[in-house]
Amino acid sequence: MGLEEMSGRGVKLLFLGTSGSIPTKERNLSSVVMKYDSELLMFDCGEGTQRQMGMAKLSLAKKMKIFISHMHGDHVLGLPGLFQSMALLGRQNDLDIYGPRGIRKFVESVNKTVQFNLSFPLHVHEVRAGRIDNEKLYEVHSAWTDHVIPCLGYSFVEKPKPGRFNVQIARRLQIPEGPLWKTLQMGKPVKVKGRKIDPRLVVGPSRPGIKVTYATDTRPAPGVVFLASRADVLIHDACFDSSLEEKASQDGHSTAAQAARVAKRGKVRKLILTHISARYRDSSILLKEAKKVFPNSVVASDLMTVDL
Amino acid sequence: MGLEEMSGRGVKLLFLGTSGSIPTKERNLSSVVMKYDSELLMFDCGEGTQRQMGMAKLSLAKKMKIFISHMHGDHVLGLPGLFQSMALLGRQNDLDIYGPRGIRKFVESVNKTVQFNLSFPLHVHEVRAGRIDNEKLYEVHSAWTDHVIPCLGYSFVEKPKPGRFNVQIARRLQIPEGPLWKTLQMGKPVKVKGRKIDPRLVVGPSRPGIKVTYATDTRPAPGVVFLASRADVLIHDACFDSSLEEKASQDGHSTAAQAARVAKRGKVRKLILTHISARYRDSSILLKEAKKVFPNSVVASDLMTVDL
Repeated sequence: MGLEEMSGRGVKLLFLGTSGSIPTKERNLSSVVMKYDSELLMFDCGEGTQRQMGMAKLSLAKKMKIFISHMHGDHVLGLPGLFQSMALLGRQNDLDIYGPRGIRKFVESVNKTVQFNLSFPLHVHEVRAGRIDNEKLYEVHSAWTDHVIPCLGYSFVEKPKPGRFNVQIARRLQIPEGPLWKTLQMGKPVKVKGRKIDPRLVVGPSRPGIKVTYATDTRPAPGVVFLASRADVLIHDACFDSSLEEKASQDGHSTAAQAARVAKRGKVRKLILTHISARYRDSSILLKEAKKVFPNSVVASDLMTVDL
Repeated sequence: MGLEEMSGRGVKLLFLGTSGSIPTKERNLSSVVMKYDSELLMFDCGEGTQRQMGMAKLSLAKKMKIFISHMHGDHVLGLPGLFQSMALLGRQNDLDIYGPRGIRKFVESVNKTVQFNLSFPLHVHEVRAGRIDNEKLYEVHSAWTDHVIPCLGYSFVEKPKPGRFNVQIARRLQIPEGPLWKTLQMGKPVKVKGRKIDPRLVVGPSRPGIKVTYATDTRPAPGVVFLASRADVLIHDACFDSSLEEKASQDGHSTAAQAARVAKRGKVRKLILTHISARYRDSSILLKEAKKVFPNSVVASDLMTVDL
């Protein structure tokens, strides 16, 4: 890892589909992608996601992981078409799918009944609550949400990043540029002209990584508050406005105000409301109700991007 | 059937998806709908078709039949999402799916691995070449196309319509309006004041019905020429331009010029080119090459409508 890579990886969220259950002219079915480093991390893959990826100019060839919340069609039916287009374009990179029990059978039975001739390795991981992925730069954690069938929320948790390297101080201390700088950056002392130099002289304190939590479909749930704790961004189910709180509870969804209370309790920085019911052509009532409880709220729209 | 219903049923073709294999910003995956009487007849159902139906303001509640050409994903992966939305909206009407062998297993395995709770009767018919449907007003015929896996083309053949009833002559002959008019319209004689009246006196010759043929994916094929014979409209695979004739043959597709030659041999009235490769942002080369052979050609675009 070079010094330049340590400062900000241009992490970006792209909302591909923000509709609840049924697509509308303006909103496609559930899917959010996080661009991280050279990788795509997708949360849910509703029907039409591959086309939305094209609209968002996202490559089908990149290293990619897909995290599926639950086995309702509007969260999972975009997978087969994505596989087919990836195969047609000759994708080589691995594709990893994570999801609750049932995801493997779905993928296998579609691959049996529709002929794809996959050109790439496809790995399906059936997971539960816990740490489900541990990479060099990040972990992914999951927790059960409170929906009508088993449903997982996910948190992407970037590992703490090394502190900033202070070039001016390094030069003043006459440490020659090169391998010694790197050693200091890695947190180890070096010797310059017989003098031992502590890395803390030139490297600032390590910086906390980014945390993004995705939780839909769900009623307001303590498990989600815990999962989202101090996240930079919480993407949360906000299917309905407060007048439909009873329906939300029946269907296993949240109102915008309930989502905002989860955000507040979880002490997150920013709340993004998604899975918006097709009845809202104008979603301003959702935004208004959320902002009353948690001011830093926005309603997601298709192809909206958020820089982190 | 009242007299008014006999004159023109406002038959309309709506192109929902016109792309070949991979969706683009402008073209979704294969699907065409014919509005006939109070019914929808759909040919192929690529991913995203339910959303395109919304864009075209087509109801998900109407009586409907879906004819699937073959088991490649870009022709069939819109079915599960359509089922789910129909179920969510509480559809009551029957839904009939016709397609080659494999369609039943696909529908059954998706219904097992994704929970839809269907609210309506769903009938799957695995069919071969021949007359596959015979209704009061129309028949549907199928024939094997020439693709890389078994693939069916379909012809919708409206039964001949009764001749026009001449109200002026009926009045001159002093036939009282009402049941006697209807009897004559049905082709049977009536008696008025002891005088026998031949229906041919007041009813013109029966009129041929509409014929629409759908054939994609396919290389140019004699079976398709036969299936399309004298059709009002032939909707045909035109994936490529002539410079890619070899690729077309390899992949089991047609060039625009080949489609035009099929239209010419089949003596059809109008040719509509579809399943356009994603490489053509501008499809004018396809139109030009087709028109050279068969002047009454058009290239389909998404949400294009054709009145019949």
